[in-house]
Amino acid sequence: MNSERSKPNRGLLIIFSGPSGAGKGTILTQLLDGENKLDSLRYSVSATTRPPRPGEVDGENYFFITRQVFEEKINSGGMLEWAEYCGNYYGTPADTVEQWRQEGKDVVLEIEVMGARQVMEAVPDAVSIFILPPSLEELERRLSGRGTEPPDMVAGRLAVAKEEMKQANNYGYVVVNDDFLESSQKVRAIFIAEKCKSTYMKNEIDEVIKGC
Amino acid sequence: MNSERSKPNRGLLIIFSGPSGAGKGTILTQLLDGENKLDSLRYSVSATTRPPRPGEVDGENYFFITRQVFEEKINSGGMLEWAEYCGNYYGTPADTVEQWRQEGKDVVLEIEVMGARQVMEAVPDAVSIFILPPSLEELERRLSGRGTEPPDMVAGRLAVAKEEMKQANNYGYVVVNDDFLESSQKVRAIFIAEKCKSTYMKNEIDEVIKGC
Repeated sequence: MNSERSKPNRGLLIIFSGPSGAGKGTILTQLLDGENKLDSLRYSVSATTRPPRPGEVDGENYFFITRQVFEEKINSGGMLEWAEYCGNYYGTPADTVEQWRQEGKDVVLEIEVMGARQVMEAVPDAVSIFILPPSLEELERRLSGRGTEPPDMVAGRLAVAKEEMKQANNYGYVVVNDDFLESSQKVRAIFIAEKCKSTYMKNEIDEVIKGC
Repeated sequence: MNSERSKPNRGLLIIFSGPSGAGKGTILTQLLDGENKLDSLRYSVSATTRPPRPGEVDGENYFFITRQVFEEKINSGGMLEWAEYCGNYYGTPADTVEQWRQEGKDVVLEIEVMGARQVMEAVPDAVSIFILPPSLEELERRLSGRGTEPPDMVAGRLAVAKEEMKQANNYGYVVVNDDFLESSQKVRAIFIAEKCKSTYMKNEIDEVIKGC
């Protein structure tokens, strides 16, 4: 049946948030390139006006663009969400996301809670997933355990994480990340289920029932 | 974490519909007892006032009860949904469903579209899934292929099926059953995703973020 369809169904837009230390990256790696790989998934690369750091690749870590280009995109509605931190802009370019979705690819935005709120308002059919650590104690352990940062930096990250975690109830789905393999299976199930929603399936349903 | 919880989360109530020949039974068998088994799943046995046929077991095929008991249950709100066909009552007793849900078991009701509508109204958080055949031609082939019924009986079943299929868009989820293994995986994913909804996860979320 599906192979006869001339146009693929529009892909999903997935907002993926969670505090530093919750394990978002590990889960996404599983889905993009691991055991629970979803072939339809694309990772949206953010744009920024900050200069690249040594080793960073344009179009991979970020799209590095000028302030002028960024502001033009903001003014023309070309940024799905954006914010300014420490004098630099960060944001999600709308054009690639739109193109991928039209091609039937599911696009994941790994963004923080303020950006997520902007996208939820702009794209009502976006699917939002928040990754929580199993507990605050475990989060603190994970953040300290990295051992790469001084204690006050860890405390600062933990404070930011706590503020972010308060937003979990505003997301459509929440996954408590006890085990990254189990969590990535849950996220995978969310993708599959979203594509079985009758609203998403409307064209296929109408195709099957048109002779009824 | 979860093992420390004194009380399990309330189980899901799943409405499972689809025309004869769509493959509901095969998919449910997979989930209840097959490769994609869900340990938490319980199948709700309907009650009826019709007499048991040879080989039918009370509590397995149906709960065989008297007209008086059935009507008392209707009047006391003890039937989640019910209907009268050919002079006999058929319905879903509410008490077992409620008990299982309280124990954290997910209860599936395999019911037709009229009963489904009653349950959707009575239980707003019920999850509804409609199984569609890939096409009307394929459905006709499956219904004829059973070879156990005369052509006019097949035509009658097909007519009923068409009426039922018109209701697919009223369900939360729709699975087009091309392949029963793939379909049972989709239904399984729907269960997992529903349990990741932030509304369902509210207690766990509040437990994690209470110190934030």
